[in-house]
Amino acid sequence: MIKVGIVGGTGYTGVELLRLLVQHPAVELRVITSRSEAGRGLDHLFPSLRGHTDLCFAEPDVDALAGCDVVFYATPNGVAMTQVPELLARGVRVIDLAADFRLKDADTWSEWYGMAHACPALLEDAVYGLPEVNRAEIASARLVANPGCYPTAVQLGFLPLLEAGLIDAGAMIADCKSGVSGAGRQANVGTLLCEAGESFKAYGVNGHRHLPEIRQGLNAVSGGSCGLTFVPHLTPMIRGIHATLYAQLADDSADLQALYEARYAREPFVDVMPAGWTPETRSVRGSNMCRMAVCRPMSGNTVVILSVIDNLVKGAAGQAVQNMNIMFGQEESAGLTQVALSP
Amino acid sequence: MIKVGIVGGTGYTGVELLRLLVQHPAVELRVITSRSEAGRGLDHLFPSLRGHTDLCFAEPDVDALAGCDVVFYATPNGVAMTQVPELLARGVRVIDLAADFRLKDADTWSEWYGMAHACPALLEDAVYGLPEVNRAEIASARLVANPGCYPTAVQLGFLPLLEAGLIDAGAMIADCKSGVSGAGRQANVGTLLCEAGESFKAYGVNGHRHLPEIRQGLNAVSGGSCGLTFVPHLTPMIRGIHATLYAQLADDSADLQALYEARYAREPFVDVMPAGWTPETRSVRGSNMCRMAVCRPMSGNTVVILSVIDNLVKGAAGQAVQNMNIMFGQEESAGLTQVALSP
Amino acid sequence: MIKVGIVGGTGYTGVELLRLLVQHPAVELRVITSRSEAGRGLDHLFPSLRGHTDLCFAEPDVDALAGCDVVFYATPNGVAMTQVPELLARGVRVIDLAADFRLKDADTWSEWYGMAHACPALLEDAVYGLPEVNRAEIASARLVANPGCYPTAVQLGFLPLLEAGLIDAGAMIADCKSGVSGAGRQANVGTLLCEAGESFKAYGVNGHRHLPEIRQGLNAVSGGSCGLTFVPHLTPMIRGIHATLYAQLADDSADLQALYEARYAREPFVDVMPAGWTPETRSVRGSNMCRMAVCRPMSGNTVVILSVIDNLVKGAAGQAVQNMNIMFGQEESAGLTQVALSP
Amino acid sequence: MIKVGIVGGTGYTGVELLRLLVQHPAVELRVITSRSEAGRGLDHLFPSLRGHTDLCFAEPDVDALAGCDVVFYATPNGVAMTQVPELLARGVRVIDLAADFRLKDADTWSEWYGMAHACPALLEDAVYGLPEVNRAEIASARLVANPGCYPTAVQLGFLPLLEAGLIDAGAMIADCKSGVSGAGRQANVGTLLCEAGESFKAYGVNGHRHLPEIRQGLNAVSGGSCGLTFVPHLTPMIRGIHATLYAQLADDSADLQALYEARYAREPFVDVMPAGWTPETRSVRGSNMCRMAVCRPMSGNTVVILSVIDNLVKGAAGQAVQNMNIMFGQEESAGLTQVALSP
Repeated sequence: MIKVGIVGGTGYTGVELLRLLVQHPAVELRVITSRSEAGRGLDHLFPSLRGHTDLCFAEPDVDALAGCDVVFYATPNGVAMTQVPELLARGVRVIDLAADFRLKDADTWSEWYGMAHACPALLEDAVYGLPEVNRAEIASARLVANPGCYPTAVQLGFLPLLEAGLIDAGAMIADCKSGVSGAGRQANVGTLLCEAGESFKAYGVNGHRHLPEIRQGLNAVSGGSCGLTFVPHLTPMIRGIHATLYAQLADDSADLQALYEARYAREPFVDVMPAGWTPETRSVRGSNMCRMAVCRPMSGNTVVILSVIDNLVKGAAGQAVQNMNIMFGQEESAGLTQVALSP
Repeated sequence: MIKVGIVGGTGYTGVELLRLLVQHPAVELRVITSRSEAGRGLDHLFPSLRGHTDLCFAEPDVDALAGCDVVFYATPNGVAMTQVPELLARGVRVIDLAADFRLKDADTWSEWYGMAHACPALLEDAVYGLPEVNRAEIASARLVANPGCYPTAVQLGFLPLLEAGLIDAGAMIADCKSGVSGAGRQANVGTLLCEAGESFKAYGVNGHRHLPEIRQGLNAVSGGSCGLTFVPHLTPMIRGIHATLYAQLADDSADLQALYEARYAREPFVDVMPAGWTPETRSVRGSNMCRMAVCRPMSGNTVVILSVIDNLVKGAAGQAVQNMNIMFGQEESAGLTQVALSP
Repeated sequence: MIKVGIVGGTGYTGVELLRLLVQHPAVELRVITSRSEAGRGLDHLFPSLRGHTDLCFAEPDVDALAGCDVVFYATPNGVAMTQVPELLARGVRVIDLAADFRLKDADTWSEWYGMAHACPALLEDAVYGLPEVNRAEIASARLVANPGCYPTAVQLGFLPLLEAGLIDAGAMIADCKSGVSGAGRQANVGTLLCEAGESFKAYGVNGHRHLPEIRQGLNAVSGGSCGLTFVPHLTPMIRGIHATLYAQLADDSADLQALYEARYAREPFVDVMPAGWTPETRSVRGSNMCRMAVCRPMSGNTVVILSVIDNLVKGAAGQAVQNMNIMFGQEESAGLTQVALSP
Repeated sequence: MIKVGIVGGTGYTGVELLRLLVQHPAVELRVITSRSEAGRGLDHLFPSLRGHTDLCFAEPDVDALAGCDVVFYATPNGVAMTQVPELLARGVRVIDLAADFRLKDADTWSEWYGMAHACPALLEDAVYGLPEVNRAEIASARLVANPGCYPTAVQLGFLPLLEAGLIDAGAMIADCKSGVSGAGRQANVGTLLCEAGESFKAYGVNGHRHLPEIRQGLNAVSGGSCGLTFVPHLTPMIRGIHATLYAQLADDSADLQALYEARYAREPFVDVMPAGWTPETRSVRGSNMCRMAVCRPMSGNTVVILSVIDNLVKGAAGQAVQNMNIMFGQEESAGLTQVALSP
């Protein structure tokens, strides 16, 4: 059994991680820390967990964490980077669900996250936890930077085209729509049901923190400098991201459907739909699947990729568990075989 | 492995049954029939099942069904009663998720369902599949009538009070609120998102088909003739039933919290919350749990029970699987241990 | 033109008041104060008002308010009571949309609202602003206590039965369901879309502040001490209250439909639906109407009243404008003739 | 008073037209026809209209319609074209809210709408009812083709850029998101709350009927052949369209904010937000406004326009009333000054 610790499990990513881990066949959940909730049962905060665990939130305690095989950070940005070096030094492997280790360049990180990085030397060492790209590195990683939700949906969508060199990498567009849970479980007027319900809007048009993360990933694949316009939107639902991706074909002779099917044929968590189908976010609600379709509207020169994930699963907690499975030699889909909840 | 067949799996109850059965450790799903969808893969109708099953819908075929150990009917009311006698005769056990065998009295059934009953002789034989009341009879039943969604939430809520004889059984009130999936996957103006969304209404105030079913159950427990006012409402969400139950205490000296906790202490799928807590429907979304709380507002003479279920799980498909587990000597919670999806 | 001031217009009641007042044919909106937003245009907070007003939020300033004919308080409980005496002394009439002046008994008020009352002597003087009961007193009032949302729906529903003495006033039940806007525009985890969406729950079962207000109103009508069980619920939508009211008939010979139609025949904002109809909250969304139906399920002894309002209109801002119209000799429906937004 | 008739008022466009017309100060609503509802009061179908009109649906009757000054068609595509010639011949002016007269080319129309056009000769004569482009022609039109919802949001968004010749017209992208009411009030599985709620999807990627309409409009402005990729999506809400428009700047020296503000300075129903703001669909819910923002993300070469409307108002019934006002010399905003319902 893998001995697991969680730091900061009071948000949506945290409760989703708990949902997956309490059912995981090879996990022993040892400790979960939360300063604000220390001493209270998990079910006080999350009644959905009643009957599934007797664990209580504990005060942060590095010694308790050091007794684990792996520790998940489900904390706000900037927390993990102050604690991870000690855990690594004590031989614990770490999966960070926040953004602390996602960017390779410390200056870029500081610019977008508004603080100095506490351990820039670790940035090179950290493995970006997108299994469809970095599976081998993840297997041996001490520190995995779990990707953001938008970056997961967007990179998986563009990858086959960039790898095959079929598009103009200088003018890609990612029009993304997210459910509100992406904004977290913070008291915030903007995400009240009465503000975010029955309405649709763009946000962060002039720069969203996931932009440099996506660009870094796309650049690594294309071997050059990708030009990406990224516009996120808030859609009135709880879970789900729908990325609608646009690019201009440099070579329009390729069989895009075959390309996508081949690229993801052996991936357990990417489903390329048959030609003519379109994915709905609900088809992945609660599941770790990324479901996608590739289209050329009116047979024109613009390729459109539709890519959907559950932002809390493949976009966060599920992908983290997938990474843990890879790191510890488990079946990659262990604990991740849930059928999406639909309707 | 239990060999399972499904008749009519194209509605919400059907897809939920499929979600549970494709993950069930002791089930081999043999055949699923649908006249309208015969020959097409399940994933054509329900993309959430892609990758979980290769099964196709088949033409109705009694011989194929006769090769199963158990057949679930997820058909409209009135279908099962025309086919079940033959299957029983051929040694197949049946769980009917429709209403055909829920009422003991054929005349009452005809009155509420608007048709003659095709096999009234089977009504006495059929076991009403509420495990918390009829577990032993279910274990040996050939034919189980799976309870309705409202009846499950209401009966479980009132049971301890009636069994203990603590309330005036002549003036009970059940004010129930259901998500829209209870209305099924039928093309219908009234359940369009634009009609049922962002609105709340009562319906069936002058008589709903679940009323005689609830009364039959409550009468069996109280040993008399219960008086019940039942008002169902439609609430703008997909899954979930919240029953708010009111009764006048005949004896106000009892410790109601202790009574409820004792009654359900060994039930795997009834959770009595601590005093002062209130259940939310989302805490059981996708799970087979019935979660409840008992209150005496302002310490008065009126007892209020709050009882929530997922109408598609404990109110339909999950309870059906629970019944199957009991019938075939499985762990009662086999295939039913999912944590609720929250948020 | 009526010169109008508003104190505290940054919540949902405030913006709804603004929506109604900027279109009111006899109103000149003079001043709106907000400490937090002073100096900013109303449209910064509420883009829906762009093009309808150039007014800015102003610092609180009693002299500016004193130049108005009437001042609306759309502030948290406890604010109006500290400022109203001075305004009244300077000849300004006041409509308080908070709870400061709703209860006649200062001790009861303190008990439920958790603070001492700043001007208990005014409580007797204040007129409870339910026009269907107190129209004449409202017309000459200096200070109107605008009713709460639940109290409006519940009192209008029970009134005809209590006035006619037809029910057992000792055991009434009000099972009420509210949209989330009733909780206000406060940053609060519990009313996030991800918490309150796609879920249904009861709250305040052991005592809600609207209970003493409702009881006070019902007692005044029945001339005795009413027994009421009041259970509020949160329903996943933005606007609307649905009150489902239950009572036992003491006299079952009355024609309840005729009683209700007669009682409200001349009321501009109460609509008794034809027998057999049931109201939906969306049929009053954005309108000042209270729409209701009266039923006797299965022709039994329990009468059920279904009463719906828009909590922000007839349950708050609209009723306040209705009261203003009465106080200033306007047509009672001036500025309140909007058709509900449906769908 | 303008004497008005409506053909086919039983859908969402119809009830919205009724909401606006029963409050319009210069309209006398004479007749509304519906074969299926003939003889019933409007309030039977739309309880929100109770108290606002006593009108009943009438059997289709060309003589009754011929007594009107103007007739609105709120019928399915293909109905108006069979009746309009007679009405025009009898001197009645017509506003068609369906698509029958939107395209100038009869062959293109037939190709996209799947039937022959009944009166192709009228296509040239019909005026495309986008007041911001064709105000003068609308004023004298006998027959106005009211624009589609997507076409309104997209054309208004792109117009200033195309008129100024600032973008590459060959590679425009319109990523559009619509509330479900755009699909109409038809019994349809796909728009059930349980199918369209809590989910997001694209549809019509390979060709949507609004594409040729948008292209025709953009071509007319740009004087050339525009290349447009148009991807519509369904978002889980009732009302609202959000168009996110992308284009490559051919000339990046222009002050886009100033351009947009100047273009729409005198338009009563287009609101260009200040730089840095982003529009939400709820800010126009129930109102006839098109609200937009213009951005250049990261100061790059891609211009992004965000354009929101209420699909039932500026995208249908409201624009139809705006056209009527222009045709009959009324104040253009008569009956259209409602503040958006927010929250």
